[in-house]
Amino acid sequence: MTTLPVAGGAQSLLSAARLAATDPAERARAAVDRSGFDPGEVPDGVVYAETVDDVVQALQLATRHGVHIVPRGAGTGLAGGSSATRGTVVLDVSRMNRILSIDPEEQLAVVEPGVLNAEVNAAAAEFGLFYAPDPASTAICSIGGNVATNAGGMWCAKYGVTREAVLSLQVVLADGRILKTGRSTIKGVSGYDLNSLMIGSEGTLGIVVQATLRLRPKPLHTATTAAYFADAASAARAASAIIAARIQPAILEFIDGGTLAAVDAMMGTEHSSRGGAFLLAQTDGHGALLEQQVLVEAITPFALSIEQTDDAGRAAELVAARRNAIPALQELGRVSIGDIGVPRRKLAEAIDGLADISQRTGVRIFVVAHAADGNLHPMVVVGHDESITEGPAKEALGEMFHLAQRLGGTLTGEHGIGVLKQDWLEEEVGSLSLELQHKIKAVFDPLGILNPGKGI
Amino acid sequence: MTTLPVAGGAQSLLSAARLAATDPAERARAAVDRSGFDPGEVPDGVVYAETVDDVVQALQLATRHGVHIVPRGAGTGLAGGSSATRGTVVLDVSRMNRILSIDPEEQLAVVEPGVLNAEVNAAAAEFGLFYAPDPASTAICSIGGNVATNAGGMWCAKYGVTREAVLSLQVVLADGRILKTGRSTIKGVSGYDLNSLMIGSEGTLGIVVQATLRLRPKPLHTATTAAYFADAASAARAASAIIAARIQPAILEFIDGGTLAAVDAMMGTEHSSRGGAFLLAQTDGHGALLEQQVLVEAITPFALSIEQTDDAGRAAELVAARRNAIPALQELGRVSIGDIGVPRRKLAEAIDGLADISQRTGVRIFVVAHAADGNLHPMVVVGHDESITEGPAKEALGEMFHLAQRLGGTLTGEHGIGVLKQDWLEEEVGSLSLELQHKIKAVFDPLGILNPGKGI
Repeated sequence: MTTLPVAGGAQSLLSAARLAATDPAERARAAVDRSGFDPGEVPDGVVYAETVDDVVQALQLATRHGVHIVPRGAGTGLAGGSSATRGTVVLDVSRMNRILSIDPEEQLAVVEPGVLNAEVNAAAAEFGLFYAPDPASTAICSIGGNVATNAGGMWCAKYGVTREAVLSLQVVLADGRILKTGRSTIKGVSGYDLNSLMIGSEGTLGIVVQATLRLRPKPLHTATTAAYFADAASAARAASAIIAARIQPAILEFIDGGTLAAVDAMMGTEHSSRGGAFLLAQTDGHGALLEQQVLVEAITPFALSIEQTDDAGRAAELVAARRNAIPALQELGRVSIGDIGVPRRKLAEAIDGLADISQRTGVRIFVVAHAADGNLHPMVVVGHDESITEGPAKEALGEMFHLAQRLGGTLTGEHGIGVLKQDWLEEEVGSLSLELQHKIKAVFDPLGILNPGKGI
Repeated sequence: MTTLPVAGGAQSLLSAARLAATDPAERARAAVDRSGFDPGEVPDGVVYAETVDDVVQALQLATRHGVHIVPRGAGTGLAGGSSATRGTVVLDVSRMNRILSIDPEEQLAVVEPGVLNAEVNAAAAEFGLFYAPDPASTAICSIGGNVATNAGGMWCAKYGVTREAVLSLQVVLADGRILKTGRSTIKGVSGYDLNSLMIGSEGTLGIVVQATLRLRPKPLHTATTAAYFADAASAARAASAIIAARIQPAILEFIDGGTLAAVDAMMGTEHSSRGGAFLLAQTDGHGALLEQQVLVEAITPFALSIEQTDDAGRAAELVAARRNAIPALQELGRVSIGDIGVPRRKLAEAIDGLADISQRTGVRIFVVAHAADGNLHPMVVVGHDESITEGPAKEALGEMFHLAQRLGGTLTGEHGIGVLKQDWLEEEVGSLSLELQHKIKAVFDPLGILNPGKGI
């Protein structure tokens, strides 16, 4: 690793940048995210940005020297969006990690991109507020990456995803110019919605250097319900019954039996002894308990047992089962994390279809899901030394996509396309849409400097 | 009016279109919307679309003959966005007015652009569902126009605006190609968000021919509170107290004393005898009554009197006061409807500032506001034969914009730029943003055919 080449343009950029590293360890660290995807090579170097000016300078240099830039925050992406290859320079903004202000009255936070999701929530909690998009990785993922992937999470069932929670952005464009998108007010329709365009663009249109986040009042009451079922089909029917009962749970999470067992093994819990599938539901607000009663009535016909609690400690334990699903499965092998979305009532069909795919391809597939959104995370688990980008794992990922399409759904609910899902993007959005998207990319980044080969 | 000229290209289009009109009455009708803005001339003709194919054909002809097209739905726009001038042809989609399907289980409606907002809600109500964006003009405005302006309304305080309620669109581009944006699932991040880009683009990027709308369960309980105050400042303080109490009202509407008097005069009600300013609040959901109690406690220190009701008929009467504000003011003269957004806690400052502007410019300004969003509608009322696009009315509109900017706000919360607010757009969004927006316009409509001179 000590004789890694560095391209001439990259060398010029790295020499001129205020903070840069070219040592093999840093380059290896910056080559991968948490998707399990290994590009098999490393970037030419890493530039660390501590200020907006650092980002501006790096992109001006990149434009001048024609260097491809891979933006990187906490590196927790699940689709390879921040993986980096030879000839690129990684621009790491994780040190831009200050919460610049919190306005409790207006319920806004202004933050830098490297701030962790959980840090925003901790700071907001001091004012009785919270930030709704809460990926399972909240403790380790950063806001810049949340914006890049339009991240979701458990609370999104009721409170919406990142796009509904980011009012305004400061973005450095590929040529170093600073663009402000959105506004600090709740509503606004002055000009095209460049804010939404930027959110979910996976670092291909600009690099977020500041975000104005919408906080919400923390509900004064939360009621938690955990239900165990004989099998996934019963749990899925129960989830549909909740939607049909016109309840809006703040959280509605599904975990299958295999995942429960993995979580039990890692956490020392005993969920899997209580059933072959699990639903976790939270209702909140002034009517939390009343809504919980309706919810419990709706699912009782399908459940083996139901636990209700309004104890915050016990609720946190139950939520932890879901949050730890991915780490628990990673104990079993290399995990390729699917992210399909389907119409909500097709949850049971989707789970059946995934079982078929597992059988046909011979790979193990575990399933957790944000049931109220119809967003499933089928996890393909292979041996620690097996590939997830070719062979049966790749085949399973392709079949999952076609399953989602057949059910009227989508390739990715909240993780993004990255590099892992590009094969199916055009089939989903159509060639006209993709043509327009590439033209928009050219408007923002005519030289194609930003995050090459990712997203669209 | 019988000797109106028709340009050659427009003549070719109008002759070839399946359904077209060139008679003076139709052209005069299609020249204006409900903004009060009169362009002083009329379009060359009107093409009526009854099917997607009609729209495709019209735009193919427009591209071939280089004709400017002004899309038109119900014509209820408040910023001149569907006003039309000589040399343009109006493409009227109001006859594309079918609700194509309602899926009560998935809580979706698929509709054509000419369907009225209230018709969607009537159809959804049969399944216990509702469509949240509810402009005051719900009875007369159509979904296509709602999409074009990212329309808001009263319920948006809790349930979000059009952008949060439209999952997917079918759009005919300027060259006649059909683009699908978004998807039918709640979540999705496959590619750039062309759906949000289209929403609020005021007919300049494409013509919406189909929309998939997200419906929501109608709350089982709604509690309505009407409060009267000595003056606007007290009412604004009460509104801030509601936000600070961490309540999320579904509706929180402010009406000033002058508007109340106008409403009373038109409706025969007696609101203005009870106070000089009015707040209407609704809480809903399983905790509606509990939340109402907290709300009433929060505003009691500021109010002269408070009325609470859970009677649907009485609630509808109170809501009608707000819905009739614009028609009531139109009885007094020609109305220019402002639409500024400010940070929510600056409502009182904004109202003070508007009083100053009224004094300085000598025009009457009435104020209603979606208080929970910080979205004010200051209404400049001049004589029926006076202009709203020049003189004191124009001056007042400009000063309103600068007031909003000073308070950290925006030119338009939910009505759009149209033609009336273009003078201030660049000042708000900046020259870089506007440059990018014009380049995006060129991606979608390289010949500049769609709604020329509107929006950006």
